[in-house]
Amino acid sequence: MVVLGIDPGYAITGYGLVQGAGAGIKCVAYGVIRTDAGDSLPRRLSVIHERVASVIAEFKPDTGAIEEVFFSRNAKTAIGVSHGRGVAMLAAYGCGMELREYTPMQVKQAVVGYGNADKGQVQRMVRALLALEAIPKPDDAADALAVAICHYHSHGMARLGAGR
Amino acid sequence: MVVLGIDPGYAITGYGLVQGAGAGIKCVAYGVIRTDAGDSLPRRLSVIHERVASVIAEFKPDTGAIEEVFFSRNAKTAIGVSHGRGVAMLAAYGCGMELREYTPMQVKQAVVGYGNADKGQVQRMVRALLALEAIPKPDDAADALAVAICHYHSHGMARLGAGR
Repeated sequence: MVVLGIDPGYAITGYGLVQGAGAGIKCVAYGVIRTDAGDSLPRRLSVIHERVASVIAEFKPDTGAIEEVFFSRNAKTAIGVSHGRGVAMLAAYGCGMELREYTPMQVKQAVVGYGNADKGQVQRMVRALLALEAIPKPDDAADALAVAICHYHSHGMARLGAGR
Repeated sequence: MVVLGIDPGYAITGYGLVQGAGAGIKCVAYGVIRTDAGDSLPRRLSVIHERVASVIAEFKPDTGAIEEVFFSRNAKTAIGVSHGRGVAMLAAYGCGMELREYTPMQVKQAVVGYGNADKGQVQRMVRALLALEAIPKPDDAADALAVAICHYHSHGMARLGAGR
């Protein structure tokens, strides 16, 4: 089962794909979708929409998830991220896949074991869990892999009948 | 010249179309796109995307505009509206039309004459400027017509060579 994770944004959208491997999981692919700050917002949203659909077409994930928008003190950033997140969800929906949503805290809980882990801890655990030689770069790709790992675990639990 | 205005949202997206008529402007059409609170967010975004594209296909506006997200105290609402706004912009872009963006203050300035007008004043001016028998309902449709009027005036000024 291939699982897609997305770290939404409008300047950079991270994506990561993981797959079960024996008792663990392995990394299938990861990357980022960058949009040009010189382009109009509609054009940038169009690039995100198109590229998310391309990633799904290429790797054919069985299921996927996207992180919720963390509402920080920067309202402008949250609003921009939400525009990008909307078109990423739409792209997945158009490919017949509804993305599950997880809060940043749920992702940290699933990957590190507690919800207040810092960014560095999450990235080191992503590297360790996927047995990668180095922490995936840029950060947005590592974060997207963390979302995929979180969803993989949740999905696995659900399949085992816990109903969660 | 037919001008489209959009008041973005995720539960209700307002749209309004106006057209020059002699020295003034007239209303072509208005309405709202409602999404079902019981549906998933991706499904709701898909409805907005599809319906905005349908409105553009039906009325073939020459140009269009969308209101910027007003960042109020309710961050959750602003985040939700931004998801809907993103897919509305994407729909217009897909139809070959980039939406201009105006702040709520710019819309009020254009319709009422000052940027701190209240909602009721804006709606009464929309009714008066378009010579409608009553204030368009629901509010989101009236607000969308206000965006269209704002864009009509700005566009008209630009065409007169002021370059603004």
